[in-house]
Amino acid sequence: MYWRRATTATILRRTMTNHSPLPTPLGDVPTATFRAAMHRVADMVADYLDRVGEYPVLPRIAPGEVRAALPASPPPAPEALDDLLADYRRIIEPNVTHWNHPGFMAYFAITGSAPGILGEMLAAGLNVNAMLWRTGPAPTELEELVTDWLRQMIGLPAAFRGHINDTASISSLLAIAAARHRVNGGDVRTRGMAGRSDLPALTVYASEQAHSSVDKAVITLGLGHENLRKVDVDAEFRMDVAALEQAIAEDRAAGKRPIAIVATAGTTSTTSVDPLRATAAVARREGLWLHVDAAYAGSAAICPEYRALLDGLEEADSVVLNPHKWLFTPVDCSVLLLRDPEAMRAAFALTPEYLRTGDSGVTNLMDYGPQLGRRFRALKLWFVIRAFGVRGLQDRIRAHCALAQEFASWVLAERGFEVCAPHPFSTVCFRAVTGGATASEDALNERILAEVNAAGPVFLSHTRLRDRIVLRLSVGNLRTAREHVAKAWELVRAAAARG
Amino acid sequence: MYWRRATTATILRRTMTNHSPLPTPLGDVPTATFRAAMHRVADMVADYLDRVGEYPVLPRIAPGEVRAALPASPPPAPEALDDLLADYRRIIEPNVTHWNHPGFMAYFAITGSAPGILGEMLAAGLNVNAMLWRTGPAPTELEELVTDWLRQMIGLPAAFRGHINDTASISSLLAIAAARHRVNGGDVRTRGMAGRSDLPALTVYASEQAHSSVDKAVITLGLGHENLRKVDVDAEFRMDVAALEQAIAEDRAAGKRPIAIVATAGTTSTTSVDPLRATAAVARREGLWLHVDAAYAGSAAICPEYRALLDGLEEADSVVLNPHKWLFTPVDCSVLLLRDPEAMRAAFALTPEYLRTGDSGVTNLMDYGPQLGRRFRALKLWFVIRAFGVRGLQDRIRAHCALAQEFASWVLAERGFEVCAPHPFSTVCFRAVTGGATASEDALNERILAEVNAAGPVFLSHTRLRDRIVLRLSVGNLRTAREHVAKAWELVRAAAARG
Repeated sequence: MYWRRATTATILRRTMTNHSPLPTPLGDVPTATFRAAMHRVADMVADYLDRVGEYPVLPRIAPGEVRAALPASPPPAPEALDDLLADYRRIIEPNVTHWNHPGFMAYFAITGSAPGILGEMLAAGLNVNAMLWRTGPAPTELEELVTDWLRQMIGLPAAFRGHINDTASISSLLAIAAARHRVNGGDVRTRGMAGRSDLPALTVYASEQAHSSVDKAVITLGLGHENLRKVDVDAEFRMDVAALEQAIAEDRAAGKRPIAIVATAGTTSTTSVDPLRATAAVARREGLWLHVDAAYAGSAAICPEYRALLDGLEEADSVVLNPHKWLFTPVDCSVLLLRDPEAMRAAFALTPEYLRTGDSGVTNLMDYGPQLGRRFRALKLWFVIRAFGVRGLQDRIRAHCALAQEFASWVLAERGFEVCAPHPFSTVCFRAVTGGATASEDALNERILAEVNAAGPVFLSHTRLRDRIVLRLSVGNLRTAREHVAKAWELVRAAAARG
Repeated sequence: MYWRRATTATILRRTMTNHSPLPTPLGDVPTATFRAAMHRVADMVADYLDRVGEYPVLPRIAPGEVRAALPASPPPAPEALDDLLADYRRIIEPNVTHWNHPGFMAYFAITGSAPGILGEMLAAGLNVNAMLWRTGPAPTELEELVTDWLRQMIGLPAAFRGHINDTASISSLLAIAAARHRVNGGDVRTRGMAGRSDLPALTVYASEQAHSSVDKAVITLGLGHENLRKVDVDAEFRMDVAALEQAIAEDRAAGKRPIAIVATAGTTSTTSVDPLRATAAVARREGLWLHVDAAYAGSAAICPEYRALLDGLEEADSVVLNPHKWLFTPVDCSVLLLRDPEAMRAAFALTPEYLRTGDSGVTNLMDYGPQLGRRFRALKLWFVIRAFGVRGLQDRIRAHCALAQEFASWVLAERGFEVCAPHPFSTVCFRAVTGGATASEDALNERILAEVNAAGPVFLSHTRLRDRIVLRLSVGNLRTAREHVAKAWELVRAAAARG
């Protein structure tokens, strides 16, 4: 080869220097040390989960304190695993927000369940990158299988095929990218969007209650934030389909090109569900991709009685459901189900020579998005589904919903409080009311939230509905029992009474 | 609130049905069962790492066999953890590609080291989502600290600030997105790129040896694949800076707008390093963002003697380095270091009401990209750096390079083989040569690769250089010793001799 003839001497000079004659391999931490540390860590994790409820959910720490407690520079010499674990126990564990705490009822509460943790441990030991079937046959096939189990569990047609992403943010971004790829026979992939006189603005539709990740997806994809139309919602915070149709018509009249609708099944503020069937009809009539963000409420669809609330889900082109949200799987695990996986492959697949294999008829998961590397996330989801069984998962979802309904009944029965939105699942929006000015009611609710969260036993979050501050209680952790919800209510009432 | 007066009856009717009076909480797997399973899994992981070298690196399995061995539908009832673990051991573990095998020398070899696995276990137990400082104070501050340690270790200026992404694919995508955000005062974020007469095509530059993730980033961001200019390389596979300047000039003359250069420090095929200082000078003169993909070779920069090979790295606007590649940290862990983190915040930050907190002066890591959810990845990196110490990491990097240099010396000394590129780090490109036609030499090398990989003890990969098939051997796993590299060479020679 040309350069060899030309430069062998150079190479040798360049590469054979600076290499001291080290013994190899220096290897990993010695096996016996590691095994002992694994057992110690096994107990630390089990101990943590046993006593997590004794921590205040929010650590009592000021910004900068953790960093100040640690050396500003890396250690030159090795440190003993014992010292690492001791520092972890002393500095890190007490200063995380305890998402696995039974009193965590903020945002959407989640669970790193026992079977999920076991799956993560084994995956960390394997350390597989299943970018190609060849680089992870079992991980690839298990990902196909377990996402198909999930498809069956929520009653989607057999045509849907799933894969696992890190976050719903990426899953939704991919769905909109696939929609973008349908424009002009896919030429955005090749030609891009800038500097073209033949390409109008491309618009995406979602309700004003859609998650901020949809905003970020549209920004990232270069469609422009203003081309995400925030469609009005009805009195129950569901997308107003007539307003959707009107927005599409206006955009078409203005020369823009609608490409996708993102409907939400379980919005972040209130868990409202957009009218999926009516929205799907609009999407089909208009030739738009329908993506459904069911990151939270998709899990409820494993219970047949909740399917009616998600009626029309099966009409979607893509659905995202996060098992790391309300299906007891450790972060990260976001399942994207696609009616036409080839549409995603067409938008993204690209195989450089160094990733080419002779394997045919296999799925190479790298083909379904921009990320080459991928962890073995299917393992923990497989463990979770098997350890609880479908019925066990259903029972837990139902129990969480029942707890939230009970909480709502307490709020509804209490003078000086109101429930602020329908609460079909495990999340309730509520607020203290005085009949006074909005600003003073808002201040009251913000004070209640601050005092409740400072108390320690629970963590609630808030949102804004119809321009009023609203408190949120979301049940989703497997440890959360009636007593924790009752404690939250006791703290809320006490804080309000101090007003 | 309006809807309460209007619809309370509806809500009650809608939400209070279908909730059977279940005992709550159903909870997680019982604590004692979990603790016992954790210990069992601890031994399974330790046993696996003890015997991983006994497996063939590539499992001997045909597509579909794993899936066929598993039930097509999810189990209705709970299964015992013992059964899960037995199935894992029987069906999954033997059928992964063993990335932790000492004979894994394909692509870039990686290591899920003992301290990294311990960090992953603890992170799985905490199950924190550190999207906000408030939702993970210690994880947020540890991520800031440990990425600063890494910055110090590779000698970047103090101005650089780091955060952790899942993959270099995303890190590079973010860097190019930040570059895009500098166009027209950031209006691409708001207005997008389609349907605008005022926006020319936006171009990005990388060498023809750059990683395919750069192609995918440009596609995802909507810039268009054809607007990624693949710049020619010199005889040693480094970006030709004169050709780069010429491409930029041609694009400007054609009315296009260059926005970013992606230089590579350690290309995937040959680990060549683009001339960073000269490229940085071009970037500065032209007003372009310089992103350096140092996902692999950035780790070598922790050894002072390798810094000269990455001369000019400190002139970059952003640098990606993957500790999950050659710094012994389990996947996934990709560190993006930014000279001006505010540029990334400006491109992406967006805080909906439900994520607003009163915390001031804190870093909310969700602000630096499109993904809201984020695992606690800093913990494992902190463990790895502390357990090995900087010197321990340096020694291991040096040992890997020394092994690769020794392998190259064997190839150079062997008639009928050639080394095909400079090999300054731990990766060597080589091929069998016969002096015959290119096609027949390529077929010979493909046959050698297939036979070597079928043998079991090692896994090599390939690439294409100057339109010839080339074999690659990359040392990066902590278990890889001289005997494994020697075994690879023995198998290669034997396969060639059968020719």
